[in-house]
Amino acid sequence: MNFRSDNEVGAHPLIIDAVSRAFRAGPVHSYGADEWTQKVEQRLRDIFERPDLVAYPVTVGTAANVLALACCTPPWGSIYCHPVAHIAAEETNATEFYTGGRLVRIDGPSGKIDPRKLADALAQPVYGVVHFSQPSAVSVTQATEHGTVYAPEEIAALATSAHRHGLKMHMDGARFANALSFIGCTPAELTWKAGIDVLSLGATKNGAMAAEVVVFFNAGPAKEFEFRRKRGGHLLSKMRLLSSQLDAYFTDGLWLANARHANTMARRLVAGLTTLKGTSLLYAVDANEIFVVLPAHMHDALQEAGAQYHPWPSDRPGERAFRLVTAFDTRQEDVDKFLSIAKAA
Amino acid sequence: MNFRSDNEVGAHPLIIDAVSRAFRAGPVHSYGADEWTQKVEQRLRDIFERPDLVAYPVTVGTAANVLALACCTPPWGSIYCHPVAHIAAEETNATEFYTGGRLVRIDGPSGKIDPRKLADALAQPVYGVVHFSQPSAVSVTQATEHGTVYAPEEIAALATSAHRHGLKMHMDGARFANALSFIGCTPAELTWKAGIDVLSLGATKNGAMAAEVVVFFNAGPAKEFEFRRKRGGHLLSKMRLLSSQLDAYFTDGLWLANARHANTMARRLVAGLTTLKGTSLLYAVDANEIFVVLPAHMHDALQEAGAQYHPWPSDRPGERAFRLVTAFDTRQEDVDKFLSIAKAA
Amino acid sequence: MNFRSDNEVGAHPLIIDAVSRAFRAGPVHSYGADEWTQKVEQRLRDIFERPDLVAYPVTVGTAANVLALACCTPPWGSIYCHPVAHIAAEETNATEFYTGGRLVRIDGPSGKIDPRKLADALAQPVYGVVHFSQPSAVSVTQATEHGTVYAPEEIAALATSAHRHGLKMHMDGARFANALSFIGCTPAELTWKAGIDVLSLGATKNGAMAAEVVVFFNAGPAKEFEFRRKRGGHLLSKMRLLSSQLDAYFTDGLWLANARHANTMARRLVAGLTTLKGTSLLYAVDANEIFVVLPAHMHDALQEAGAQYHPWPSDRPGERAFRLVTAFDTRQEDVDKFLSIAKAA
Amino acid sequence: MNFRSDNEVGAHPLIIDAVSRAFRAGPVHSYGADEWTQKVEQRLRDIFERPDLVAYPVTVGTAANVLALACCTPPWGSIYCHPVAHIAAEETNATEFYTGGRLVRIDGPSGKIDPRKLADALAQPVYGVVHFSQPSAVSVTQATEHGTVYAPEEIAALATSAHRHGLKMHMDGARFANALSFIGCTPAELTWKAGIDVLSLGATKNGAMAAEVVVFFNAGPAKEFEFRRKRGGHLLSKMRLLSSQLDAYFTDGLWLANARHANTMARRLVAGLTTLKGTSLLYAVDANEIFVVLPAHMHDALQEAGAQYHPWPSDRPGERAFRLVTAFDTRQEDVDKFLSIAKAA
Repeated sequence: MNFRSDNEVGAHPLIIDAVSRAFRAGPVHSYGADEWTQKVEQRLRDIFERPDLVAYPVTVGTAANVLALACCTPPWGSIYCHPVAHIAAEETNATEFYTGGRLVRIDGPSGKIDPRKLADALAQPVYGVVHFSQPSAVSVTQATEHGTVYAPEEIAALATSAHRHGLKMHMDGARFANALSFIGCTPAELTWKAGIDVLSLGATKNGAMAAEVVVFFNAGPAKEFEFRRKRGGHLLSKMRLLSSQLDAYFTDGLWLANARHANTMARRLVAGLTTLKGTSLLYAVDANEIFVVLPAHMHDALQEAGAQYHPWPSDRPGERAFRLVTAFDTRQEDVDKFLSIAKAA
Repeated sequence: MNFRSDNEVGAHPLIIDAVSRAFRAGPVHSYGADEWTQKVEQRLRDIFERPDLVAYPVTVGTAANVLALACCTPPWGSIYCHPVAHIAAEETNATEFYTGGRLVRIDGPSGKIDPRKLADALAQPVYGVVHFSQPSAVSVTQATEHGTVYAPEEIAALATSAHRHGLKMHMDGARFANALSFIGCTPAELTWKAGIDVLSLGATKNGAMAAEVVVFFNAGPAKEFEFRRKRGGHLLSKMRLLSSQLDAYFTDGLWLANARHANTMARRLVAGLTTLKGTSLLYAVDANEIFVVLPAHMHDALQEAGAQYHPWPSDRPGERAFRLVTAFDTRQEDVDKFLSIAKAA
Repeated sequence: MNFRSDNEVGAHPLIIDAVSRAFRAGPVHSYGADEWTQKVEQRLRDIFERPDLVAYPVTVGTAANVLALACCTPPWGSIYCHPVAHIAAEETNATEFYTGGRLVRIDGPSGKIDPRKLADALAQPVYGVVHFSQPSAVSVTQATEHGTVYAPEEIAALATSAHRHGLKMHMDGARFANALSFIGCTPAELTWKAGIDVLSLGATKNGAMAAEVVVFFNAGPAKEFEFRRKRGGHLLSKMRLLSSQLDAYFTDGLWLANARHANTMARRLVAGLTTLKGTSLLYAVDANEIFVVLPAHMHDALQEAGAQYHPWPSDRPGERAFRLVTAFDTRQEDVDKFLSIAKAA
Repeated sequence: MNFRSDNEVGAHPLIIDAVSRAFRAGPVHSYGADEWTQKVEQRLRDIFERPDLVAYPVTVGTAANVLALACCTPPWGSIYCHPVAHIAAEETNATEFYTGGRLVRIDGPSGKIDPRKLADALAQPVYGVVHFSQPSAVSVTQATEHGTVYAPEEIAALATSAHRHGLKMHMDGARFANALSFIGCTPAELTWKAGIDVLSLGATKNGAMAAEVVVFFNAGPAKEFEFRRKRGGHLLSKMRLLSSQLDAYFTDGLWLANARHANTMARRLVAGLTTLKGTSLLYAVDANEIFVVLPAHMHDALQEAGAQYHPWPSDRPGERAFRLVTAFDTRQEDVDKFLSIAKAA
């Protein structure tokens, strides 16, 4: 009954097998000039219905975010994001390091940027004025850090503000597949059709070992990416390590199946929990993260039974909240066992 | 007959199997709080006879080098290295990006820093003078970019100069195992006993998928490493990807066996080639890289037969030089076939 | 009737004369090894009752702030300040550029950091955790960007929180003299006795041409300053330009007399304005800045008469606010003329 | 008899008077929106015969160089310069800090870049290859750090190489007036007509208090300058401090007269010294710096008589070399006294 995090689980067997095969395949060209890397880009072009997109694999989500943003933000630029966004609340100054930019936090309920507040912030008369950071990029997290999902029209509302003022739209898609599975639209509709310019698309939390891919829908800012990735120490010589994972990930809908399973398990958990007295959700459970208040006796019984999950700060005094995360390999029997213990308590 | 590079080959089966097993093992703590990561550190403490060393896995050699150097160099410091060192000749400003430091290139034959020139450079009266970059670190590459290997006493000579002036000694050990195999001393003798403070120890070029480990023999500068690694986007959540590789790499001497094989194949190639008329070596072949002048007809015959290797700049006009690299999986039959074609030509 | 800004006025005659004399004095040692620079440091030691303080002149306030903060904040650190602080709201990423640090904005009324909110923010369990920026410095602006002044005990309350967690306290004292004049305590009481570790002490807005001085009450972080100042391009060869200004500024209380005059003129302006119908203050007028709502007809009349001042954003719809700034050379007759026009309107 | 440095002397009376007048002039717009700043740009357009040039004053030469180069060099770029260039040999990593770029040192006699070596270096096949810093700018120092001066055709030879590969040409003109005075051509001929794209034009060493101006002959890279200057903390609010100096400097040929005088004094010194036995010049004396070997007894006699100048490293053992610098205010009687003491010894 491990619900600690989707980055603590192993990898999907198809991905493990793909990596094994790739590394038994003998010599191939290094630094991404291999067939897997080309195939990944092609798959993404098909999936996103954009024959002109450019895609670059990297190992870590932090790198995917900040390298993407560095291509959108000059050193005198500013990046608008929600206060709980990873790039602002965690990642230890990686954003500032890679971009030189300044973070501006725009609040909003459920981990989503309030479109009105963003519009107001971007309407400030700072453009071209040398004393002020120049608004350069908006970064949205999909699914958000609160487990909610932006609808395409919510993204479009932010993108309209952003593009009106010449900013680029970045999406931190560490859990993009979970978001997509929830919304049920096409990948194109959730990204470039809604105004996203560049997407950090995660696989690590959804069944890969360690693989993310930065997808540029506009080639313009992509030009610099290759130099920035090398300079950041993020260009693998044996790129097949990342590309073989991503190739398997995007083959036959594995990425969607993994996300669907994680979401389904989360929904099953929520359905069971919310019927129990004393529980309450902090946020809507759109994707695979559940933020829930549990009564003390229920939490104690679950802990005793070996259930694992993290505490989460609650605003209301006397109340204890927790985060439960499901993953591609969460077993239904674990969910049901968890619920029966909770129910018994 | 692929002698293009040791970063174009696959991975050793024992390493592939270790990764597969690790990712089938279910949930473990993320970000390095797993058993493999701990085991790797313990193995390194045994191998280097230093129970106090601290070790951090990273994915890419560039990152291993520049993160290590950033812990040794303030933003007003300078780093001394050979002009052909990767950190100065390649890696696209990663050194400057991570350290803020200035590169000072000290020449010397065979890719090795001339100890006299280093001593002279470090004797300049710049210490504490605000107009000058403050000498902060020396970086040696072992084996060098010219395929040669520093003897422990050669390193000690550089380290004595460096330490006299308060600089730290860094070793770029992308091919450390090949160097060690050539020298035949203990890992301790080739590093901290010779004055090395921090080692970037490579596995990628010697049979791993993508794994390097930064080894601090003095814990002092290591304190910052964890923050710097995170800030650089180099902290993997599923650290087992790197640690399982490294664990297998250092088990039962696999790293040494791989290097020994690569070196033996290089030596076999050299022994055969140097008897042939018109060939000549640019540098001594200590490790697994061969820099050799080939007569035009021999090169043509080899190309025709499908042999693969890179051209290399030669100083003498009219002469064409090439780089041949052997690896952990170079087949003796390929070496012999190469030699017989060369001989026939 | 120019109330646009205290950085648009000229310089005090005593400062102009001091610069003229200094540059007619023939050759002196460069880069600060001159008598004026030494005298400035000695004067500051007397003024602040700290014989061990260290002081460094720089030309621009932005540089004074960010160089000071860079000595307090590692590249993985965070800096806490009010959202309207110059280092966060203006200065175009200079803070991030020099420190590598992340800005965290802590709100509070009247441009002052709310001590409770700061304490809460610093109580977060992020210390030593590699995923989070490490809290490193608090920066307070004195007088604030809203023209208010922190009392020593207000500073002490913030400093207690900061020091409990190992952060350094920085004061942006661009208008320090105005604040001091308002409070009426000693310079020591308003700084190190209240817990300030490093002060950016401004002269430019208070009668100098362009001169600020960074004062370290603890020598520890000062060690790096000289290298950082040089690396930032802020070390003047003919340092006498800055030091002669500062020497005059701190001689015979000129700095206090200038500030007292500016504050008095502001108070006179406020006293006259607030009796007029339709006016209201946005913030208390502690120092030399007035943020005031003016009725439309009054504003029009003043503009017609040639009065100069900047608009200021007002939160209440339909209301127009303005900023008026007095300076060391504001003439009482201009104040009175301004008031009589306003009154007439 | 002070020949230590042209940055240790005072300022020209006309410049002192201009600053005094400017600061007695009452309120003017800040941050460069004043009449002096506009006049300086206009004067430079006239002087350089380029009605489209853009000019930005800054306080310090280091800042002038690195801000200019930052507009020419992306963070993955490299900057080619002579090993003794200030940006490479001094300035404590300011170049790396502002540009993110990598320094590549190209040697050559007399402090000048060897055009053949530059051409060879720029012919390396690194363009577009992600592993290598991308050649982005060449910086020449005029007059050089060895007191020599590039002829226009020498600059053009370097610029041809640079421009062929798309690099920008930067000139560190800390002693540009001295160089111009020596060559006797027009300012245009020594800069943009010879291929210079951006010039850091110094006044500080030639009679100003502290003032440099960055001159862009191509507006393209200038676009960023204003944001970079602000972000570096180099934008003065009371810009008249710099502009009034520069306005006086460029009025009625003061800058040329000052340089001519310094050069004449240097030539007088050289003419006298080189007739004396045991003396020899290290480099040709084109501008106002003399690098000379003095016999021990002559040096002792001069020191005894109070002559001041710095030692300079000599390559030949047993020989002691010195640097003598003349300035705008060097008195002929001091030169003659120096020579008579040297002669007597």
